[in-house]
Amino acid sequence: MAQSINVGIIGFGTVGSGAYRVLRDGAQKIASTAGGPVRVTRVADIDWKRPRLVRVPERLRTTDAREILRDPGIQIVVETIGGVRPLGLVMEALRAGKNVATSNKELIAKHGGKILEEADRRGLDVMFEGAVGGGIPVIRPLKVCLAANRIHRIMGIVNGTTNYILSKMDAEGRDFDEVLAEAQALGYAEPDPRSDIEGYDAAYKLAILASIAFNSRVRLGDVYREGIRRIRAVDMDYARELGYVIKLLAIGADTPAGLELRVHPVMLPRRHPLAAVNDVFNAIFVEASAADQVMFFGRGAGHLPTGSAVAGDVLDIARNIRHGATGRVPCTCFERKPAKSMDAVEAKYYIRMQVADRPGVLAQIAAVFGEEKVSLASVVQKASGGNRAEIVWVTHTAREERVRRSLGRVARLGAVNSVSSRIRVHEV
Amino acid sequence: MAQSINVGIIGFGTVGSGAYRVLRDGAQKIASTAGGPVRVTRVADIDWKRPRLVRVPERLRTTDAREILRDPGIQIVVETIGGVRPLGLVMEALRAGKNVATSNKELIAKHGGKILEEADRRGLDVMFEGAVGGGIPVIRPLKVCLAANRIHRIMGIVNGTTNYILSKMDAEGRDFDEVLAEAQALGYAEPDPRSDIEGYDAAYKLAILASIAFNSRVRLGDVYREGIRRIRAVDMDYARELGYVIKLLAIGADTPAGLELRVHPVMLPRRHPLAAVNDVFNAIFVEASAADQVMFFGRGAGHLPTGSAVAGDVLDIARNIRHGATGRVPCTCFERKPAKSMDAVEAKYYIRMQVADRPGVLAQIAAVFGEEKVSLASVVQKASGGNRAEIVWVTHTAREERVRRSLGRVARLGAVNSVSSRIRVHEV
Repeated sequence: MAQSINVGIIGFGTVGSGAYRVLRDGAQKIASTAGGPVRVTRVADIDWKRPRLVRVPERLRTTDAREILRDPGIQIVVETIGGVRPLGLVMEALRAGKNVATSNKELIAKHGGKILEEADRRGLDVMFEGAVGGGIPVIRPLKVCLAANRIHRIMGIVNGTTNYILSKMDAEGRDFDEVLAEAQALGYAEPDPRSDIEGYDAAYKLAILASIAFNSRVRLGDVYREGIRRIRAVDMDYARELGYVIKLLAIGADTPAGLELRVHPVMLPRRHPLAAVNDVFNAIFVEASAADQVMFFGRGAGHLPTGSAVAGDVLDIARNIRHGATGRVPCTCFERKPAKSMDAVEAKYYIRMQVADRPGVLAQIAAVFGEEKVSLASVVQKASGGNRAEIVWVTHTAREERVRRSLGRVARLGAVNSVSSRIRVHEV
Repeated sequence: MAQSINVGIIGFGTVGSGAYRVLRDGAQKIASTAGGPVRVTRVADIDWKRPRLVRVPERLRTTDAREILRDPGIQIVVETIGGVRPLGLVMEALRAGKNVATSNKELIAKHGGKILEEADRRGLDVMFEGAVGGGIPVIRPLKVCLAANRIHRIMGIVNGTTNYILSKMDAEGRDFDEVLAEAQALGYAEPDPRSDIEGYDAAYKLAILASIAFNSRVRLGDVYREGIRRIRAVDMDYARELGYVIKLLAIGADTPAGLELRVHPVMLPRRHPLAAVNDVFNAIFVEASAADQVMFFGRGAGHLPTGSAVAGDVLDIARNIRHGATGRVPCTCFERKPAKSMDAVEAKYYIRMQVADRPGVLAQIAAVFGEEKVSLASVVQKASGGNRAEIVWVTHTAREERVRRSLGRVARLGAVNSVSSRIRVHEV
């Protein structure tokens, strides 16, 4: 039997313990597939007193991550701490000649360029299949299977918490705050849900996906981000009437004017493949020059699914080690594409507003849209009691900046109480 | 710039010309990704007079495939002839030290073991991402990304022609023969549609998928196969009433009693992710120990989608060549799992039959099911005119052999005119 390839895991939380469990339970299959055993020989965590989903033998435990970096017998470091703090550890691991598998989306989104550059310089592997889409294979399929394609667009439901909330709101007609509270009680949403609800998590994932899809390193700051807090049950009702479903999408598009990079709620036609992706499930939909439409669906988070992705990376690295071929799939950001300004993005818009219920108001608002050259596709006005009315507009395709400017002017009209919602509409 | 890696294409039909076009149009991206140029230097086809979707320069053309096998400058052979005839060529290519990319499902399903064994012995790559699911990445994700999982079950819509026909029948309430004729006129079905309609094509793909998913070489003869010819518009109507949609599925399952390997129509709950896969689209749904549910969706056939898959393989092989690592993902059939007899498969069944419309008939039939220990979940009887009635039964989970035996006995009852349909029902 070939010599064992040894793995050290740094950070033994949800994902770290998942990866440990998948590597342990699949040891026999992994050994057959990788041409020899792959063993976790060390696990570092600062606190071994917390209750864990998996038990690690005493002799493998340490509280000092640097013990793993100093261990010459370890060839693969699994980083599952999360956040940007482990940057130093990861760079140190590479400088010590170790390959890295990580599920850390924030780290890769913010420092991927630096990390991959160091890995490429040293001919080492850095893999991060678990950073996007949890257990869904998507990074490797994009980097390898679809590598001969030009990717035009990528649209993902990449955050399970917000998808769960929106699915519940749609299915049960309930409002945001109520469903969020339930999701928190069930453990589907964090006590501080901002990273999910406000789209930060999705933005990290989009930065990673788009960098790979478009072969150009995306700066996180170039990703436009808008969360789901302002969506109301009534928006869900209008969406349903219009034949749409509301999803928080991470959208990347390669256009002549630059890369569109945006995370925001979208009204998606009910027949679109992403429209059927509900609850905590994730999916990434890709439009490519040759393969055309491709979608990857599955569990976007969790102990075992994300552990599965990390273990798959470990196995792939192990094969490279055995063949002396680490670094064989280097960073593929060999182009430099500018980001397109959000102002220049074009879309249809659904706009819901509260106005005074009196003659001439609708015409007054429509005139503003007309002056800003935002063409209107449909309008519905409903009395909502107490001399107030609700108006819902759907525009034709218009430039974001014109819509923004229109709504700024409309909001200042005396007859307009508030512009409650503005949701971009995706046409197939 | 690194030395060019040269490719010879054998068979310039739909897929061969698609692969040529994708490799040509993506040359720059491919060179950047593969660390140097990848060039098609020779294309063999027996007939250069047929009209083609892509033009190949005269100097690359040959009518002699062996010219490619003899060319010491060619490291990768793309086999896109189809059928089992190219077996000799593929074996010869391997013996000549060349790597192979092929989209030939029949060849891999029937002779994959022999071909991969030869490749492994020589440390060469044989890749066949295009053989299943056209442009959908599924082989590599199963072999690499999900490699640490135990795959419990795989269910695929892997034949676009039959999915198109069933989707049309469902959406438009039309009958099989009419929709088939239309599909033929549109070029979605072959003039001789048997390979698709009777499930042969799906059986090839299942043999390949199951071999990889379950790490055990599947014999094509062990795949149970039943086509869609007997499905009628009225079955679609009943399915809809019951909350199902009818799909031709390729199902593989790893059970304690052996591998279930079967291609047949299935009534699938409308909320199942595969239920929304319509028209010529394909999808492969996987249930895995750690990743849980994963689905791959896209175009299962066609010039460019399948060409995309072949080009992705070529690119992956090129990277292996540059790193001296061909053969790094060898055959993964390192177990030997027996096939489970179809008789032992358990499922729910939808059964539609024509009977004489007179008292006692229903009881007489129900008695037969009872004696064979097939428990009934529901029954609907409708008069269909002329002293005849239609009865639709849905059973609880029962063994295939008991259902078959029951229906044999039922068909011999004097009051039963015919058993028109028997469709297995999938429960989530």
